[in-house]
Amino acid sequence: MSGTLYVIGTGPGGPQQMTPEAVDAVSKSTDFLGYGPYLDRLSLRPDQNRIASDNREELDRAQAALVRATSGAHVCVVSGGDPGVFAMAAAVCEAIDNGPDEWRTVDLVIVPGVTAMLAVAARIGAPLGHDFCAISLSDNLKPWDVITRRLKLVAEAGLVIALYNPISKARPWQLGEAFDILRTVLPAETPVIFGRAAGRPDERMLVMPLGDADAQKADMATCVIIGSPETRIVERPGRPDLVYTPRFMSGEKR
Amino acid sequence: MSGTLYVIGTGPGGPQQMTPEAVDAVSKSTDFLGYGPYLDRLSLRPDQNRIASDNREELDRAQAALVRATSGAHVCVVSGGDPGVFAMAAAVCEAIDNGPDEWRTVDLVIVPGVTAMLAVAARIGAPLGHDFCAISLSDNLKPWDVITRRLKLVAEAGLVIALYNPISKARPWQLGEAFDILRTVLPAETPVIFGRAAGRPDERMLVMPLGDADAQKADMATCVIIGSPETRIVERPGRPDLVYTPRFMSGEKR
Repeated sequence: MSGTLYVIGTGPGGPQQMTPEAVDAVSKSTDFLGYGPYLDRLSLRPDQNRIASDNREELDRAQAALVRATSGAHVCVVSGGDPGVFAMAAAVCEAIDNGPDEWRTVDLVIVPGVTAMLAVAARIGAPLGHDFCAISLSDNLKPWDVITRRLKLVAEAGLVIALYNPISKARPWQLGEAFDILRTVLPAETPVIFGRAAGRPDERMLVMPLGDADAQKADMATCVIIGSPETRIVERPGRPDLVYTPRFMSGEKR
Repeated sequence: MSGTLYVIGTGPGGPQQMTPEAVDAVSKSTDFLGYGPYLDRLSLRPDQNRIASDNREELDRAQAALVRATSGAHVCVVSGGDPGVFAMAAAVCEAIDNGPDEWRTVDLVIVPGVTAMLAVAARIGAPLGHDFCAISLSDNLKPWDVITRRLKLVAEAGLVIALYNPISKARPWQLGEAFDILRTVLPAETPVIFGRAAGRPDERMLVMPLGDADAQKADMATCVIIGSPETRIVERPGRPDLVYTPRFMSGEKR
């Protein structure tokens, strides 16, 4: 007998940013696996089991969830934001790819959510209004050389850049070096947004030019968005500045 | 007296993918401006005004919404998916940037949503599980040369690529040419996902290798996701294949 494995995202903020589809998956599940602070965002019933684990144990968590689902449980793996963006959906797919055959028969339901960069963008204007990319700055999962090469190429391509996992106690220097690399390609006045905990009570939005961007303004809960040379700032009296990237770029159509 | 201008996204699918925050903005608004099919996704009350306009009239719509909000109305500008991704939030910011001073004083509330690529990714596995980008293929808004240059650079960078606005009656050849460009950089076996209407009753998911990718499989409601050289396919007996991009890339940390 096989159960169901839901992989959901809570959205970046409070329950107001969690879709009804994700809420429905929560109500149908009995076992919840995830990083503690993400599980804390759910209001579980007494009959629902909370199995918290550390943020860096994603593959172990995916495997544990598949074992439970294979034995017939309705299991919910919980990410913050969207589960498909630097989160648990890829870990679950990887576990299935490398696991026993029976894991391939599990009823897998991945539920999309609002990922952090979208919530940060909405709070500040529309910096992702034109072509953009999302890059994880964690060199726990890929070589730093790959990251630096990607940063150069996407900046040369003129894409707005959203950086996930920008900094942590174990990775204190990477964001500063990323800014240094981007300063060799992008104008010093390019807006950089430090979007912390968008949609939550401890939200903090900060905008500074790339020339002055200070990595110490970021923490683990921050998504950093670096504009393109097209990105603009709109000043508003008595209100925070808007940052947006115009939809239109002039030039020959062909 | 100034009203409020909400800019919301309905999510890509049915009401199950629309956040409570967006539903709340709808309930508080009196005037709704948007492309007709997006407005059709809302269940409006008799006292709420529906003002539909064509998909290509985004700046006019933004200006009309700002005029109404400035005169005190609670106005809701409606996008599909997320309003910040190739949608109305940038058009509203642009209108404020270039409009009369009084538009800068409007209470602007942008509400994030689930954008199409996240919904497509969730249906098929986790293709966006590692670094990725989103590029609009519409050369109505930027020169084709910029698009081709960006495609080459992001493929060289090893990013997964989500293409928005891949094809339309007025733009029939661009997607085929994009595939040709990507075939010069990426392996022929790179998975290409045609994700149509994810989360809606007429949803259709199709995966084919880049070497055989056929632009005619896409329509205006399709988001096309092209994998990276790392992207993998997991076969499952009696279930659709999973497509995912591993979180981990081997190599020296530094």
